[in-house]
Amino acid sequence: MTLVSTGRLIGVGTGPGDPDLLTVKAVKALERADVVAYFAKAGRHGNGRTVVDDLLRADVSMLPLYYPVTTEIDRHHEDYKRQITAFYDLSAEAVAAHLDAGRTVAVLSEGDPMFYGSYMHLHVRLAHRYPTEVIPGITAMSGCWSLAGMPIVQGDDVMSVLPGTMEEAELARRLVDTEAAVIMKVGRNLPKIRRALAASGRLHHAVYVERGTMRNQSVTRMIERDDGEAPYFSLILVPGWERSS
Amino acid sequence: MTLVSTGRLIGVGTGPGDPDLLTVKAVKALERADVVAYFAKAGRHGNGRTVVDDLLRADVSMLPLYYPVTTEIDRHHEDYKRQITAFYDLSAEAVAAHLDAGRTVAVLSEGDPMFYGSYMHLHVRLAHRYPTEVIPGITAMSGCWSLAGMPIVQGDDVMSVLPGTMEEAELARRLVDTEAAVIMKVGRNLPKIRRALAASGRLHHAVYVERGTMRNQSVTRMIERDDGEAPYFSLILVPGWERSS
Repeated sequence: MTLVSTGRLIGVGTGPGDPDLLTVKAVKALERADVVAYFAKAGRHGNGRTVVDDLLRADVSMLPLYYPVTTEIDRHHEDYKRQITAFYDLSAEAVAAHLDAGRTVAVLSEGDPMFYGSYMHLHVRLAHRYPTEVIPGITAMSGCWSLAGMPIVQGDDVMSVLPGTMEEAELARRLVDTEAAVIMKVGRNLPKIRRALAASGRLHHAVYVERGTMRNQSVTRMIERDDGEAPYFSLILVPGWERSS
Repeated sequence: MTLVSTGRLIGVGTGPGDPDLLTVKAVKALERADVVAYFAKAGRHGNGRTVVDDLLRADVSMLPLYYPVTTEIDRHHEDYKRQITAFYDLSAEAVAAHLDAGRTVAVLSEGDPMFYGSYMHLHVRLAHRYPTEVIPGITAMSGCWSLAGMPIVQGDDVMSVLPGTMEEAELARRLVDTEAAVIMKVGRNLPKIRRALAASGRLHHAVYVERGTMRNQSVTRMIERDDGEAPYFSLILVPGWERSS
């Protein structure tokens, strides 16, 4: 009889895009991993993978986990929920098979694994079954306010992270109720977000950041940004600092 | 006549405490810096410095910036404000003298420089005068939810970062109004924070993390934590995940 001890599951934050914004701990974990798993759109390379490509061993096994559905179906629709849940279940079992064989599996997660990251769906399915570690990553928002040179919060400031998908009046209400704000999921919501910023008196200080820390990055004041659709890697920052100093 | 081009100001995020949670970019910047500046209590080594001690060149110049006042005076008192403003002005000029002499100055900032970091006070005084770069760091909150293995936000969750110094009813109101929350500045506010968590129905899922990613780190459910004073490096996490899954 051969006893094989199980491998280790490691959620690895790959940061906002610049490979130098990986942590030392993430670099070490990736250099040592037997298997590197990552989520991506079908047929795509995946941004998390692009960031780490130069670090991986030649003999590492890659385990791409391709989403079965992306934006074609409304994400609140029952079909979407059933498909995506089944996908995460299958993905977890694909990772578990490697762990059962004693292999260390690093799962790439853009930004920070526990902060809106897909890795969480594997974590909740596997962390109670295998030795697990989560290596935090620089969030997109940290990358963006650092690039913009914008002090975001100080002292007793409240900061709110808000999805741009939120209803306009609700977004405006929350912008009034906070010192600093980060608005995620900009996409096609830019005209609505602009109206909510204006209604809450926060438009003048708001800054739009696109592809922060990646190639082709840009920082634009919201009052100078047009209302065209924003790419996936974009967010809007409203600093708290101005209010209190 | 000798022309000396000015040096570069670099705000360096040193992360939550574990030296391996520095970014690769931060390590490179610290290895190359001519001067390393850091804020600390008078006579103390400073946590940001402890994290980077092993990286610094033997011939680097250290520029400690010792706070003239800490918790002895109420921070809303005019004397405190005047003293601390004068201190930041003087600190900025001490850094500027090195920059004028052509030396690169790395300013250590625990966590992320633009997220409640003291570095911001130098940044707003110097960034328009010298070439400046901000290197983001892993925030204490990212370090803590990663250590706790806690998915903090997913999908369209709202996250609120709240100071524990806030008035009890206001804190409870905000805890009801958000999916996820991070409560900073726990200190002596633990009994009050516990009451606000209970009033908002969030106590059961709240987790207290002390010295996350440092030696002697600990993770405790709030319902198992006593009301004794919390050290400086502590915070409370309320996950959004439970609400939506």
